[in-house]
Amino acid sequence: MFETIIHPRVSETDAVGHINNTVVPIWFEAARRDLFAVFGPPDDFSQWRMIVASFTVNFEHELTYPAPVTARVWVERIGNSSLTLHEELHQHGRRCAVSSTNYVNVSPDTKRPERVSDEIRHALEPHMLPATEHSERTS
Amino acid sequence: MFETIIHPRVSETDAVGHINNTVVPIWFEAARRDLFAVFGPPDDFSQWRMIVASFTVNFEHELTYPAPVTARVWVERIGNSSLTLHEELHQHGRRCAVSSTNYVNVSPDTKRPERVSDEIRHALEPHMLPATEHSERTS
Amino acid sequence: MFETIIHPRVSETDAVGHINNTVVPIWFEAARRDLFAVFGPPDDFSQWRMIVASFTVNFEHELTYPAPVTARVWVERIGNSSLTLHEELHQHGRRCAVSSTNYVNVSPDTKRPERVSDEIRHALEPHMLPATEHSERTS
Amino acid sequence: MFETIIHPRVSETDAVGHINNTVVPIWFEAARRDLFAVFGPPDDFSQWRMIVASFTVNFEHELTYPAPVTARVWVERIGNSSLTLHEELHQHGRRCAVSSTNYVNVSPDTKRPERVSDEIRHALEPHMLPATEHSERTS
Repeated sequence: MFETIIHPRVSETDAVGHINNTVVPIWFEAARRDLFAVFGPPDDFSQWRMIVASFTVNFEHELTYPAPVTARVWVERIGNSSLTLHEELHQHGRRCAVSSTNYVNVSPDTKRPERVSDEIRHALEPHMLPATEHSERTS
Repeated sequence: MFETIIHPRVSETDAVGHINNTVVPIWFEAARRDLFAVFGPPDDFSQWRMIVASFTVNFEHELTYPAPVTARVWVERIGNSSLTLHEELHQHGRRCAVSSTNYVNVSPDTKRPERVSDEIRHALEPHMLPATEHSERTS
Repeated sequence: MFETIIHPRVSETDAVGHINNTVVPIWFEAARRDLFAVFGPPDDFSQWRMIVASFTVNFEHELTYPAPVTARVWVERIGNSSLTLHEELHQHGRRCAVSSTNYVNVSPDTKRPERVSDEIRHALEPHMLPATEHSERTS
Repeated sequence: MFETIIHPRVSETDAVGHINNTVVPIWFEAARRDLFAVFGPPDDFSQWRMIVASFTVNFEHELTYPAPVTARVWVERIGNSSLTLHEELHQHGRRCAVSSTNYVNVSPDTKRPERVSDEIRHALEPHMLPATEHSERTS
């Protein structure tokens, strides 16, 4: 699991009074920082491999300023050339948002889907969502 | 259907070279401007009724700077106290992203779910996704 | 003068109730869309010439959701390799924010400052801030 | 001095390849988190006192993804009802951006400027920019 602490920003609130819903995908992407580094040199975008195919977000409790938010990212599934993430945001000790994101691993040269290498599969192993935990977390 | 033209911003691109995926929910929310006005005075957030419960985004083609993007918002379903939107972004004449968003209609006073009023149902009628179109658009 | 209409977004408000101050530079950059196109093909970032050196923003009235905002961009000064912009945001018929931005024109190849070409100077002429207007607008 | 570590986000880069210039005011506001808490309960926006009157940003080096950024906030001056901040962003051990921001302290009730209380002045004392440092930092 990759874990990051996020400090909500005033600019991320909205006039309804809480964190605006559109901020949540931004936080989830921010929480993938160390995951991205597994797929290539993080400062060389010409070698970028990770293209988002789809994502879902479910809101369970409102997120507010300024209490810190814990973002957790698990790899739920590694397909041939794709990857599914399970992600959660926790604030005040409770889960506030859950997300599922599908990435395609592309060749930096051809921009076409490419098999996730064994090296990357190996590096992601410690971050896989355990099967038992999966049914609880997504139910 | 609610339709809005969105001009991509340089600040909405990312170093991979296209519009960052996290921008898409922002554009969809921007495209709901006239929908929000149906639910209450748009400049009085103390009367705000629309709370996002969940959303999904599917990316079909990359979005790029600077060609204009057409955002379209249909109401797919009105439940008792909830609302499902079907939304699309088109650029260069093709559909690039599709989204489904669930809103809960809350009482501004109690913040609890409240039945969508007949007045609002009536006002949304012209914006409903036709059933035949639905199967095509979401398939 | 380059003029753009900007529709404030709910995600651009903050919990204080107005448009968050950090959104204003984003809107000003958005309003430079046609200016950027003078400096090179807007869809080819490898040829990008415009690097921000500094900017100032003065807030004169609060900006709110959802009334449309008119953004105006003038070229105040063209130096050897630099450019100063004078920009304004108007809402409800009054000026709400004024900005001055300095850009450096760089060579896309060397990333070093480069003289603004005669072709670009000529293309910017219709967008220069008139001297008389300048003293009024910046006073 | 208030100090915060900021982790650049992919969504904060732009297609030119670095952190987009509009992100810098967002980071500076994020770095004021503990400063804001001095002015009132941070989770009660109805008691918010801090309204931005103006700001300047000077860029000294480009900011890039993903190396951590250190943001530092000093109080440069406390006027009757106003406050000037001196702020800096450092990455890879060098100063990349400097900012000066003017805030007005308003009464939460009347929204009119109000004298900064002695209690707040006292709490800000340890965060004042030393005079000698000032001339170096802003030169």
